[in-house]
Amino acid sequence: MRCGIGVDIGGTKIGVGICDTNGSVVGRNVRPTGEPEAIIDQIRELIQQTGISISEIDGIGVGSVGPLDIERGRITQPVNIPHWHEIPIVALLSETFSLPVRLDNDANAAALAEARFGNRFEHFVYLTLSTGIGGGIVVNGRLYRGARGNAAEVGHMILVPDGPRCNCGKRGCLEALASGTAIGRRGQELLGLEQASAKLVFDRARSGDQKAKQIIDEAARYLGLGLANLMEIFNPNAIVVGGGMVKSWELFAKRVERTATAHAQINRAPIRPTELGDEIGILGAAALVWEPPRIAETGGHPR
Amino acid sequence: MRCGIGVDIGGTKIGVGICDTNGSVVGRNVRPTGEPEAIIDQIRELIQQTGISISEIDGIGVGSVGPLDIERGRITQPVNIPHWHEIPIVALLSETFSLPVRLDNDANAAALAEARFGNRFEHFVYLTLSTGIGGGIVVNGRLYRGARGNAAEVGHMILVPDGPRCNCGKRGCLEALASGTAIGRRGQELLGLEQASAKLVFDRARSGDQKAKQIIDEAARYLGLGLANLMEIFNPNAIVVGGGMVKSWELFAKRVERTATAHAQINRAPIRPTELGDEIGILGAAALVWEPPRIAETGGHPR
Repeated sequence: MRCGIGVDIGGTKIGVGICDTNGSVVGRNVRPTGEPEAIIDQIRELIQQTGISISEIDGIGVGSVGPLDIERGRITQPVNIPHWHEIPIVALLSETFSLPVRLDNDANAAALAEARFGNRFEHFVYLTLSTGIGGGIVVNGRLYRGARGNAAEVGHMILVPDGPRCNCGKRGCLEALASGTAIGRRGQELLGLEQASAKLVFDRARSGDQKAKQIIDEAARYLGLGLANLMEIFNPNAIVVGGGMVKSWELFAKRVERTATAHAQINRAPIRPTELGDEIGILGAAALVWEPPRIAETGGHPR
Repeated sequence: MRCGIGVDIGGTKIGVGICDTNGSVVGRNVRPTGEPEAIIDQIRELIQQTGISISEIDGIGVGSVGPLDIERGRITQPVNIPHWHEIPIVALLSETFSLPVRLDNDANAAALAEARFGNRFEHFVYLTLSTGIGGGIVVNGRLYRGARGNAAEVGHMILVPDGPRCNCGKRGCLEALASGTAIGRRGQELLGLEQASAKLVFDRARSGDQKAKQIIDEAARYLGLGLANLMEIFNPNAIVVGGGMVKSWELFAKRVERTATAHAQINRAPIRPTELGDEIGILGAAALVWEPPRIAETGGHPR
């Protein structure tokens, strides 16, 4: 059996899994995010527990919160892990395990999981709907990374010029209108919540609070507009959504779909919540191991 | 010498050219748009004039105003050529000349001209700024067409929800804010022009009219926001702009660039007016002849 190790680095927890080439997770463990070196122990324990031999493992893929310096194999200065700074994660793992190691951001990894183990659409845009809004673009069945590996910053598409301030410094980005952070902020403004929390807004909406419903409706409308823009631009087979907010997708689905359908005048496409669940991060990281060589690595296309 | 014939079908005129594989136009003629069959005569005359033998010609590419039914090789119902209806252009030309014929929309063809004969960026978005705003996407050096061949409808990205009405039926599309049509409409509103014409607004701005300058400034700002969104989404090597409005680019350039730079927080990219001039349409149509087989034609990618 050929296997890949997937390391899913998030702000609060790190998941490590061993997957086979069909996307079955043979074993996994999840720990609170600590020191980077703890990942080594996490991987060693998992290899022991599963009894997989190192000779069966094709490599290690790391999907991580950013920002990353992919060329140098580093996690530079993650906003959500303040005590991490310039972590040479690729060198750390490849020297320890003598295996090839690949690094990419978590949204790209999740898109790759969808392309390889999920819906397997030929052309799609994947959106992580969470504290922020990240994205991954798959065209012709391959992850598209752009000129410097930073493509798919779909959360920073401006939808409302001079709209609310975004964490990136701009105004009116999709992320500032429809992310968990945006919903929490509207909860503070409209519901008088002390702490900004999307979860609280979701709970109130579920128990019938009209203002909470209105907040979600607003966010869902902007999300629908953003997805419609991506449909017009990509003419995709589908849009796939994942991330924490998708656990409350029933609160959003109708309004998002209605808005996207009304505003994707030329290129309508279905919107599908991912079916890979919590494992999407580990699966996507592992999928990096088997990704065909990036086009830049093969010397570009013939002209 | 290997040659391709490029047919550039517009609402007011049709250009036909014979190009070599380096993008030199060996001969061309341009006629007012008449009956579709007139294209046959236009091609025959050109072949005679240039003395090129049919055995040197690899095929015919047609770049046309839409909408098109590419699968059936038809120009369906062009808005700007009202007396054309379901023209089977591919069959018409391939049967007459016994040559392979390829059809695509004019913006895709122009993007292909840029990819093959122009700036040759690896990843870029091309925008036709004209009566409307069309687009073509090149990733990994190849034209990206999407699931049904309709990708790159960048003019119908919504930038101002509930903004001015667009020809597509939606509100606040980039095309409704920054196209020649939008500028002409603002000219009617703010300058009291009787006829909506971007050209009149440009002329007035050049002679110092402050309101005309303001109209252009507004359009340039929206264009800058739209291009910033495309930069964040594609992380391209560049954005390339062409079309009639680019002849007055000096009126737009500064504001467009300043706005795009300020709003492409993560993925800045240069904005380049095409250097292929009026020949971009013919060159792009001819480039269709030598395009590698579309991925769908080869049975998709390996998974």
